[in-house]
Amino acid sequence: MLNPVKVGILGLGTVGGGTVHILQHNAEEIARRAGRGIVVTHACAKEINQTYPYSTDNLVLTEQLIDVVNNPAIEIVVELLGGTTIARDMTMQAIANGKHVVTANKALIAKHGNEIFAAAQQQGVIVAFEAAVAGGIPIIKAVREGLAANKIEWVVGIINGTSNFILSAMRDKGSEFNEVLAEAQRLGYAEKDPTFDIEGVDAAHKLTILASLAFGIPLQFDKVYLEGITKIAREDVRYADELGYRIKLLGITKRTEAGIELRVHPTFIPNRRLLANVDGVMNAVLIQSDALGQSLYYGAGAGALPTGSAIVADLVDVTRTLTTDPGNRVPHLAFQSNALVDLPILPIEEITSAYYLRMTAVDTIGVMAQVTHILSENRISIEAIIQKEPISGEKQVDVVMLTHQVKERQLNQAIQAIEHLESISGKVTKIRVETLEH
Amino acid sequence: MLNPVKVGILGLGTVGGGTVHILQHNAEEIARRAGRGIVVTHACAKEINQTYPYSTDNLVLTEQLIDVVNNPAIEIVVELLGGTTIARDMTMQAIANGKHVVTANKALIAKHGNEIFAAAQQQGVIVAFEAAVAGGIPIIKAVREGLAANKIEWVVGIINGTSNFILSAMRDKGSEFNEVLAEAQRLGYAEKDPTFDIEGVDAAHKLTILASLAFGIPLQFDKVYLEGITKIAREDVRYADELGYRIKLLGITKRTEAGIELRVHPTFIPNRRLLANVDGVMNAVLIQSDALGQSLYYGAGAGALPTGSAIVADLVDVTRTLTTDPGNRVPHLAFQSNALVDLPILPIEEITSAYYLRMTAVDTIGVMAQVTHILSENRISIEAIIQKEPISGEKQVDVVMLTHQVKERQLNQAIQAIEHLESISGKVTKIRVETLEH
Repeated sequence: MLNPVKVGILGLGTVGGGTVHILQHNAEEIARRAGRGIVVTHACAKEINQTYPYSTDNLVLTEQLIDVVNNPAIEIVVELLGGTTIARDMTMQAIANGKHVVTANKALIAKHGNEIFAAAQQQGVIVAFEAAVAGGIPIIKAVREGLAANKIEWVVGIINGTSNFILSAMRDKGSEFNEVLAEAQRLGYAEKDPTFDIEGVDAAHKLTILASLAFGIPLQFDKVYLEGITKIAREDVRYADELGYRIKLLGITKRTEAGIELRVHPTFIPNRRLLANVDGVMNAVLIQSDALGQSLYYGAGAGALPTGSAIVADLVDVTRTLTTDPGNRVPHLAFQSNALVDLPILPIEEITSAYYLRMTAVDTIGVMAQVTHILSENRISIEAIIQKEPISGEKQVDVVMLTHQVKERQLNQAIQAIEHLESISGKVTKIRVETLEH
Repeated sequence: MLNPVKVGILGLGTVGGGTVHILQHNAEEIARRAGRGIVVTHACAKEINQTYPYSTDNLVLTEQLIDVVNNPAIEIVVELLGGTTIARDMTMQAIANGKHVVTANKALIAKHGNEIFAAAQQQGVIVAFEAAVAGGIPIIKAVREGLAANKIEWVVGIINGTSNFILSAMRDKGSEFNEVLAEAQRLGYAEKDPTFDIEGVDAAHKLTILASLAFGIPLQFDKVYLEGITKIAREDVRYADELGYRIKLLGITKRTEAGIELRVHPTFIPNRRLLANVDGVMNAVLIQSDALGQSLYYGAGAGALPTGSAIVADLVDVTRTLTTDPGNRVPHLAFQSNALVDLPILPIEEITSAYYLRMTAVDTIGVMAQVTHILSENRISIEAIIQKEPISGEKQVDVVMLTHQVKERQLNQAIQAIEHLESISGKVTKIRVETLEH
């Protein structure tokens, strides 16, 4: 048997700890698969004088990142620093030193992946990033290798556990967003500053990566349309239920004749779909492709051990390719780097979707006729309407409708006209609807 | 770019046709991923003088299998003959000739895989079989590579589309097994002789393969416990619903302290689980592993294009490894061949499970006391009971119960005693229950 592969880890936080634990705890199981041992020999932590919940006996600890990155004995560097500045410098330095890199850093790949993969290719090294999307679910491998025969049509994913936990709890308990967010923070499912999760930034990082792998396009994080879950009201969750739908924060990317749709936003999906029943912090990705049809991949999207599972799978993969021809490996972005195509990313106004609309009518007489007239003028047809009786003593009443497919620009025009009606008070709430049919 | 890889196909039926179609239709997409073309140059069909729904212009057709297997220009042979006699001979011959083999033949792998993989290893060639389990779902890749970090605890799968279609339809329509089977045959979802599907043989082939990949044990098809769906009655489906369960034909393999459970049978699972909502001909595999936790893989388990999708994915994988060191590839059965262990397979009486029991009481007075007495004597505790009022004029009444976990031998003893009661008429129906919790 070959000597164990030597790994250096940058960052011994939650995921770093999970990775070390798995490599120690399942050492025999992993070596039986990989054909040789995989051993963490060096690690960099912010503060090395602490006790760790795993053995550090044969582990050289340092507080200097460069000690790991420049160490000639290390074959694979695991980057778990987070952020896109130091993480980027260290990744580029490791590549320059001829080391393979495994990373869980979605922001780094989404923003600087094109540059990083170009450098890696030039050096003949691999930058593996299974842990960057949907935690432990082997989704990168599924898209990049498992679906290699397919023309992928669209990818839709629940790829942010925090948002999914909040939306699931809003439905289960009938609570408002802010109450549930506070609870998620108490339980450790949401950060103190939850912006990245609840505003969809984290999902957008992951979606950027999935879109490149699916369609063979460069990474273009700055072109993702972004809308978080902070404006989802308790009523919307209730009306969704009434209409037979669930609200999920989805990352959606589609190949259309006009270009690629690339968007993260709360979405109505029919409650009978498997994806609608992915609850709590769990993740799932649904893919429509021409040969296989629909396939779905479900599992834990975060956490020390699930993320560590993906990192160690990458370590095994990289270990196996140490003896391969660099020109004949699985390409970083699924397609050969010279075969990427620059399909246009569509602005959100150019997408086509069905919509849920909720508005408040102040005067119920004639309002329906006015609203439906505006919609029909804009060639928007209606799939379903809910109009509640006003609560006694109140004049205001919710009007809720589902539209058929329409271009978003056209819908926005109609909404503007509706908001100008005297019988409508305030803004119209708009949530996109996906049936997830092929 | 390297020259296209030359592929020969044995068997131009449904799946062979799907494979050729995908390779032609998505040729550009596939070459952009693989870095070189993959071209079927030779194919063997039973009757070559027919018209095909795809181009055969650059395809040499033959009716002699050996023409393909012995052709020195062919690098990869795709075996789609079915059966385990000629398919085995041709596979062994292709290996002896130094060719890689891609197969969709689950029976062949389940029964002769140990011998085939040994020969392949000796010759330094790959035998790839993604299409043999769950059709187009990249489940072999997920277990063998995606979960490489994990100690796998159990694998549970809906891996026979025909049976799942029948059980789904029995529930949707409240029909009896035979009616639904006839409909499935009309629709082409069941064969004229449906034995392999409805008696669980096909699922057992696939489960045999999954168990080896999960636990690093040799393939042992003859040790699978087998029970089909032919005895599932309309009442059982209805009682399952009443109790909050669905009945699915599952392949189940678990690692326990005493050994490996390896069994195919109809199973009650809670209706809120994703797996319970996999309906019609779709397949899904749920895996419990120590680092990732639960992960689920869902998609089409059969059909020309889905199965072709898996075959072409294997062709791309094999193409990539043509230049690799044979000692450093993903091992056929996930674990290095010298690292397989011979864990004992438990006889069905040694497994532990919860159970659904249905019996007919002829005299309702005192029968409950007698039955529960027998169960308690055998240390079996009861989770739920349904006892219906007898329909007026009838003396017979169904008694239905769910038990807690118990060893099957112990349950069988209790059942024997219950069947001896004068107040119980006929046999007790027993269906195993899995909660799918970790």
